[in-house]
Amino acid sequence: MPDTQTLYDRLLADSRRTALLASCGGLLGWDEQTYLPPGGAAHRAEQSSLLAGLVHEWATSPERGELLAKIEAEQLSDAPDGPMAANVRELRRDYDRATKLSRRLVEELSRVTSLAQQAWVQARKQADFKQFLPWLEQVVALKREEAQALGSKTGVPYDALLDQYEADATAAEVARAFASLRDELVRLVNKIRDSGRVPDVSLLARRYPIDAQRKFATEAARAIGFDLDSGRIDEAAHPFCSGIGPGDCRLTTRYDEHHFPGAFFGVLHEAGHGIYDQGLDPAQFGTPMGESVSLGVHESQSRMWENRVGRSFAFWRHFHPRAQAAFPEALSDVPLEDFHAAINDVRPTFIRVEADEVTYNLHIMLRFELEQPLISGDLSPADVPAAWNEKFAAYLGPTPPSDVQGCLQDIHWSAGLIGYFPTYALGNMYAAQLFDAAERELGDLDVQFAEGEFRPLTEWLSANIHRRGRQFPPARLLELVTGEKPTHAALVRQLRAKFAPLYGL
Amino acid sequence: MPDTQTLYDRLLADSRRTALLASCGGLLGWDEQTYLPPGGAAHRAEQSSLLAGLVHEWATSPERGELLAKIEAEQLSDAPDGPMAANVRELRRDYDRATKLSRRLVEELSRVTSLAQQAWVQARKQADFKQFLPWLEQVVALKREEAQALGSKTGVPYDALLDQYEADATAAEVARAFASLRDELVRLVNKIRDSGRVPDVSLLARRYPIDAQRKFATEAARAIGFDLDSGRIDEAAHPFCSGIGPGDCRLTTRYDEHHFPGAFFGVLHEAGHGIYDQGLDPAQFGTPMGESVSLGVHESQSRMWENRVGRSFAFWRHFHPRAQAAFPEALSDVPLEDFHAAINDVRPTFIRVEADEVTYNLHIMLRFELEQPLISGDLSPADVPAAWNEKFAAYLGPTPPSDVQGCLQDIHWSAGLIGYFPTYALGNMYAAQLFDAAERELGDLDVQFAEGEFRPLTEWLSANIHRRGRQFPPARLLELVTGEKPTHAALVRQLRAKFAPLYGL
Repeated sequence: MPDTQTLYDRLLADSRRTALLASCGGLLGWDEQTYLPPGGAAHRAEQSSLLAGLVHEWATSPERGELLAKIEAEQLSDAPDGPMAANVRELRRDYDRATKLSRRLVEELSRVTSLAQQAWVQARKQADFKQFLPWLEQVVALKREEAQALGSKTGVPYDALLDQYEADATAAEVARAFASLRDELVRLVNKIRDSGRVPDVSLLARRYPIDAQRKFATEAARAIGFDLDSGRIDEAAHPFCSGIGPGDCRLTTRYDEHHFPGAFFGVLHEAGHGIYDQGLDPAQFGTPMGESVSLGVHESQSRMWENRVGRSFAFWRHFHPRAQAAFPEALSDVPLEDFHAAINDVRPTFIRVEADEVTYNLHIMLRFELEQPLISGDLSPADVPAAWNEKFAAYLGPTPPSDVQGCLQDIHWSAGLIGYFPTYALGNMYAAQLFDAAERELGDLDVQFAEGEFRPLTEWLSANIHRRGRQFPPARLLELVTGEKPTHAALVRQLRAKFAPLYGL
Repeated sequence: MPDTQTLYDRLLADSRRTALLASCGGLLGWDEQTYLPPGGAAHRAEQSSLLAGLVHEWATSPERGELLAKIEAEQLSDAPDGPMAANVRELRRDYDRATKLSRRLVEELSRVTSLAQQAWVQARKQADFKQFLPWLEQVVALKREEAQALGSKTGVPYDALLDQYEADATAAEVARAFASLRDELVRLVNKIRDSGRVPDVSLLARRYPIDAQRKFATEAARAIGFDLDSGRIDEAAHPFCSGIGPGDCRLTTRYDEHHFPGAFFGVLHEAGHGIYDQGLDPAQFGTPMGESVSLGVHESQSRMWENRVGRSFAFWRHFHPRAQAAFPEALSDVPLEDFHAAINDVRPTFIRVEADEVTYNLHIMLRFELEQPLISGDLSPADVPAAWNEKFAAYLGPTPPSDVQGCLQDIHWSAGLIGYFPTYALGNMYAAQLFDAAERELGDLDVQFAEGEFRPLTEWLSANIHRRGRQFPPARLLELVTGEKPTHAALVRQLRAKFAPLYGL
């Protein structure tokens, strides 16, 4: 009988091999969004499906289950939350989740969401929710089945879905945090509206030549710590970050000559994700200790760099003269203060991805509040448009003129991503908490930003978050690093401190 | 007991699945040469090795062997060289080849050639053959072992290596064809030298802006039939064509602002390969009937488009005015005749990839004549530089000033590609034969080229070569399509007919 260490080594080798195969699928996915010629789409679908099937087969192999059971029956030579124990705990979590889903359900979800995404594209083009409705009904039915199969500690089916993006989070806790946050945000939005100040945002729609944008955004990504020897920035219709594996992390963005913030803050956002991926321990690749801990924490990194850093006055004290040199036609007559006010314009918009820092979270809450009854069965997919518009009016004022600017705007539900949206707002909350904790250790970060010094923050995040992989569940990691449980308070404080001077509140 | 058709369907499904997995490795390989960030190289090597190992495992599975044996024991409902019979025959060939090589040998070859390529890069940089020698010795030893393991019908070990690139070809036949060709080529080179005519090639080194080159080369590739909705052209240090799968074929080239022919004829060459890949029957993907038949025939396609078409006077009657519009600075004062003469300059060069159409084959013969004694053991790797220089002087005149311009110039041997070079010259011979056959059916093709009509030739090649996959072994395919066995005669005739007027012979 091999000893525990030998069994553990076998388990990790098995996990690494599976991750290595999955990372091949990662490259295929990246290529599909960037360089794949249209004629290759059908073949690519077959390639991806073959790899996904193999990965699922390996990840649910009886051998892995036996290894886990044998190791769990023995004493590990490790502290209860040491790296070995964490690897075993998280591999067990992944294994149980994967084996609870039948092959039929996995394949059916893959097939239906692939078709549903195409139906969504069409429905959106024709502004016709009814075309999408039968697909939404199928997706919701399958996700309800999935939630049932997975089960959750709380007995709430939605929690089973949420758990795969944010381990151990529950809808009840999230709802509590969101309720407090919502009141504060609505109050802040109203104050900003009542201030009467409206920044001149037209200066962001002047001509920003695309080559110059590309160069400028790349330099900014490099400055905040994204390593371009181990990564790339390409173009894609839907911006994303894809960590293929150690030394290979790829961002995408899209450029619009007459909209500066889109690509620039998009790159900062994706670079935030990329810096997390690049900060993972390459020696732990393919094991939980070398994986990111949750979507919420991942989003905390992207939103911190995009908003707390990238839209700060200090950041632009450093970058504004550089932007003026890069875009003389657009910016030579624009003072730093006006530029900073323009990129921090707060006003309700229908589209989530165009929303400012303050209203953004209200978009998330709305989706979270519709997803839960969809999964519990209290909301019928057919009633989504009306429910959406009602909530939108309540939180943000106007009513969307069409479902394209309402419930048809996001791809997520068509792709089966239910339970995913809340992690965006959790990310904003985590980001604020983490930033405060970093400042307690590193001193006034804005002083550093104004001098173009971003590495201390990057390195702090790397040591405290990235390098820890999945050693601790996300909420515990937050508490360990910041000294407090996840809370909305830091975010509200930061938003108030930032927008009070901008709007004379 | 399932019937033969059922067994055959299972065999094809198994073959398709393996090819689908191999095609994932194809994309990884393409990406490695184009967009992979340097930091990702180690991870990429692990990904590729995992996929290659899996593909080898599937391609040598006992189940496949059993299926083959059962099918071979039955009567197929197909003519002896019909598609079913061809699929079984070729899958047997591949299976036997793959299973004859031990896993140890496959892995050792992979490991040693990977390191030998790195050593070759260094040795070339430092113009020091001795650094490369121990690696060449290891590669040659392993290739001799491989030839032994594979065996050949003739008993000649080199034939076992040649066979994997050009099925059923033998060194003896190739040597016979090359001997006749060599005499004719040496005579032609001497006549050209003695003509005293030296075209002005400096016009090809004027400024050709890279964006304009990219556009012009892409349009030419499209004109000859390369489908850019099912393919791409990117940049890479070493140009290649990679057919990933149905609807997805990718070419690469490299641009030099002051060397027009490099990228342009490179793109025509790779597009010739690409048109072959795009001409394969997508419904047969993953089975021999949907695969290219040999390297020699593949090269016949690339060389035909590059040289017989792309360097013809007729081609430039169509493209020269377009080139003048695309590169006014370089070409507005250059008459068609001067341009045509410049791109057909014949003179001995040390470097194969820079060689003209006439001397090119002499470079190949030299390599072929060294490879055979290396594998038979009659030539020691240490004696390669002296043997190289001696042959070079005999065939082409001068002696290379250094091994960098001699035996260190090609990557092939370091990569374990021995038996590969002859297919380049075979491709030139096949191209001439196929072109003659096409003209017999389609009429004077130059008349069509001068009007920008390339589709009749493309379609003829597709119907006669591409769509046939591996239904017939390469030499039989040639005979079937051209009515004669592979011969050097057509090539010699075409070269004489072309260069006589250019050099007033």
